[in-house]
Amino acid sequence: MQISSFHPPVRTLMGPGPSDVNPRILEAMSRPTIGHLDPVFVSMMDEMKALLQFAFQTQNALTMPVSGPGSAGMETCFVNLVEPGDTVIVCQNGVFGGRMKENVERCGATAVMVEDPWGRAVDPHKLEDALKAHPEARLVAFVHAETSTGAQSDAKTLAEIAHNHDALVIMDAVTSLGGTPVMIDDWQIDAVYSGTQKCLSCTPGLSPVSFGEQALNRIKHRKTKVQSWFMDLNLVMGYWGSGAKRAYHHTAPINALYGLHEALVILQEEGLEQAWARHARMHQALKAGFEAMGLRFVVPEAERLPQLNAISIPQGVDEAAVRAQLLQDYDLEIGAGLGAMSGKIWRVGLMGFGANPKNVRLCLGALEDVLSRMKAPIERGAALAAADRVLG
Amino acid sequence: MQISSFHPPVRTLMGPGPSDVNPRILEAMSRPTIGHLDPVFVSMMDEMKALLQFAFQTQNALTMPVSGPGSAGMETCFVNLVEPGDTVIVCQNGVFGGRMKENVERCGATAVMVEDPWGRAVDPHKLEDALKAHPEARLVAFVHAETSTGAQSDAKTLAEIAHNHDALVIMDAVTSLGGTPVMIDDWQIDAVYSGTQKCLSCTPGLSPVSFGEQALNRIKHRKTKVQSWFMDLNLVMGYWGSGAKRAYHHTAPINALYGLHEALVILQEEGLEQAWARHARMHQALKAGFEAMGLRFVVPEAERLPQLNAISIPQGVDEAAVRAQLLQDYDLEIGAGLGAMSGKIWRVGLMGFGANPKNVRLCLGALEDVLSRMKAPIERGAALAAADRVLG
Repeated sequence: MQISSFHPPVRTLMGPGPSDVNPRILEAMSRPTIGHLDPVFVSMMDEMKALLQFAFQTQNALTMPVSGPGSAGMETCFVNLVEPGDTVIVCQNGVFGGRMKENVERCGATAVMVEDPWGRAVDPHKLEDALKAHPEARLVAFVHAETSTGAQSDAKTLAEIAHNHDALVIMDAVTSLGGTPVMIDDWQIDAVYSGTQKCLSCTPGLSPVSFGEQALNRIKHRKTKVQSWFMDLNLVMGYWGSGAKRAYHHTAPINALYGLHEALVILQEEGLEQAWARHARMHQALKAGFEAMGLRFVVPEAERLPQLNAISIPQGVDEAAVRAQLLQDYDLEIGAGLGAMSGKIWRVGLMGFGANPKNVRLCLGALEDVLSRMKAPIERGAALAAADRVLG
Repeated sequence: MQISSFHPPVRTLMGPGPSDVNPRILEAMSRPTIGHLDPVFVSMMDEMKALLQFAFQTQNALTMPVSGPGSAGMETCFVNLVEPGDTVIVCQNGVFGGRMKENVERCGATAVMVEDPWGRAVDPHKLEDALKAHPEARLVAFVHAETSTGAQSDAKTLAEIAHNHDALVIMDAVTSLGGTPVMIDDWQIDAVYSGTQKCLSCTPGLSPVSFGEQALNRIKHRKTKVQSWFMDLNLVMGYWGSGAKRAYHHTAPINALYGLHEALVILQEEGLEQAWARHARMHQALKAGFEAMGLRFVVPEAERLPQLNAISIPQGVDEAAVRAQLLQDYDLEIGAGLGAMSGKIWRVGLMGFGANPKNVRLCLGALEDVLSRMKAPIERGAALAAADRVLG
């Protein structure tokens, strides 16, 4: 069997990620590959650290991209900071809190779960109670922006509570970075991981992480070896560390790093505040359109992420058929529900490069068309005008 | 501080990897990103499996790329096949056998080391002796092509010995795949991992793996959970498995996979035997040139990998200065020694797209020039002619 080159269709990506990639990033990824110890590459790595420090709003020296997707970034945080026998408080309000639990348990530690309804923010009072009940807990983990529901939690307050009880904090910022404020130093987040394929508009495959002084100290003074050789920061730091001599640990994904570098240069050119404001404005426009159609949001407005809009499936609608039709007729991808939300919601992303008026209008027009053809109970003819009133 | 777009120099990569990337692959990586659950992407994943089965010469259903570099592929093999308390025989004849030991120990198992000199193949008799002394060993791990020295081991014989003692086999084929025969089914290799940035001429960042029936059975009947959530094949198979329904595990590195797909299409177009013959011929030409210069190979001819040529540093030569000069004057990268070989050898790669007459001639001419200027004790003026006699 002879297989030919793969030529993907041109989609508009408005699911929970990957999001639309800026063509500048695709072009950057196709630049000539150089060696992972080439002095020119090493200076690019230094720039990458500075750019990530900017994106994360941190001075943390250990700020770098893990050579794997967001779930590898998550695991890097847990395997380095958790030791067997530890107690870790894990706040869960969606799918990704459940993954944190898996990570904790696979490190031989105990996860104490703080459960909140899916689609709501983490309740700080429940965290406080859990820490009082478990004074032995050394670590608190929570998701800043739940990709499975679109709920945003109050990271600064959660971190404060954890620190008051002498626990360090691991935060998931996969979907928030670049789309809403992520202030690692101001919020005193000890360890954070993110992804490239959400509001940074880069291709998937890397996971930016950052670790503060206290987290580093804990890693340096572990009683046991980190269970993963690939993710052991004591070793990775030999390559990504700021010393002049870089020791080979693994072969860095050179061209993927070109792409992330370009994505961060683009973010720097726009400015963080400007990027956050753009995401907020596009969300307002999409929201106006959805509400004019009669679609309902899953997350209360005060706890909602602008870049990930979870809406309930209208009654009687075959949600998978709608997504298939959008893909077929409009080359438009929106996301299904995940886990407990499967079959109940759609997730519409407005992330990074994709957070623009054209995408808002495309989505509203296409969804209205497809739902109308399927005779769904929606209001017709008002969505685009409602969005345009916000977009001006 | 404003950071600009990164524009790498155009190098010729003749180190131990990354190797020169075929421009078709760079172009493929810059194609539009689509979703990791897009039906078009899922059919590309099926093609990817077929192409990797071809490259590995296997019918194994579980054949796929791990979403991380070679060291993540290595760890995927170990964390899935090793359980705490196991005994694993690890053959070491270079740096990467040492990593295998680290992997075994971090899984809570005991590594019994079979040591051979760096620069030599693994001695099958020593493996046999170790298995007799350790009848409890359930697993044997060895490196087919030692990237740190350029030595090739007799994988088929080593696997036979392991199976005779009821042990399964993990093989490192990072540097061999695409450059010399790797016959997973014929050799009965139970688990294998490779890399993309060597003889497949792709960018770094992915690790093709393949697991046979017996390895799969062992994974399915583990007494303990795999310690890595990210690498747990029981979960990864839900996404890469051959069923119609793909469950989300992690977001696949879409564009990197486009690149690997193209690399494998190119390999299929050329044919495996033709690719192996080309690597062998380019090695003969480079060898003729090196020998005409008076440079000595580290590995005896019968155990030598054609695609990775380790040569001893001529006496009195500052090896790092030579590499720096080659990079500066010729944009040519060759590799330093690693681990115990550091400062003693150079590693010259002729891998994939880079295994061509132009690179052979560039390397010989440049090295002769730089070494001459440094007054190294080499023969001058004969290298290129010697290579040309092979190249015809």
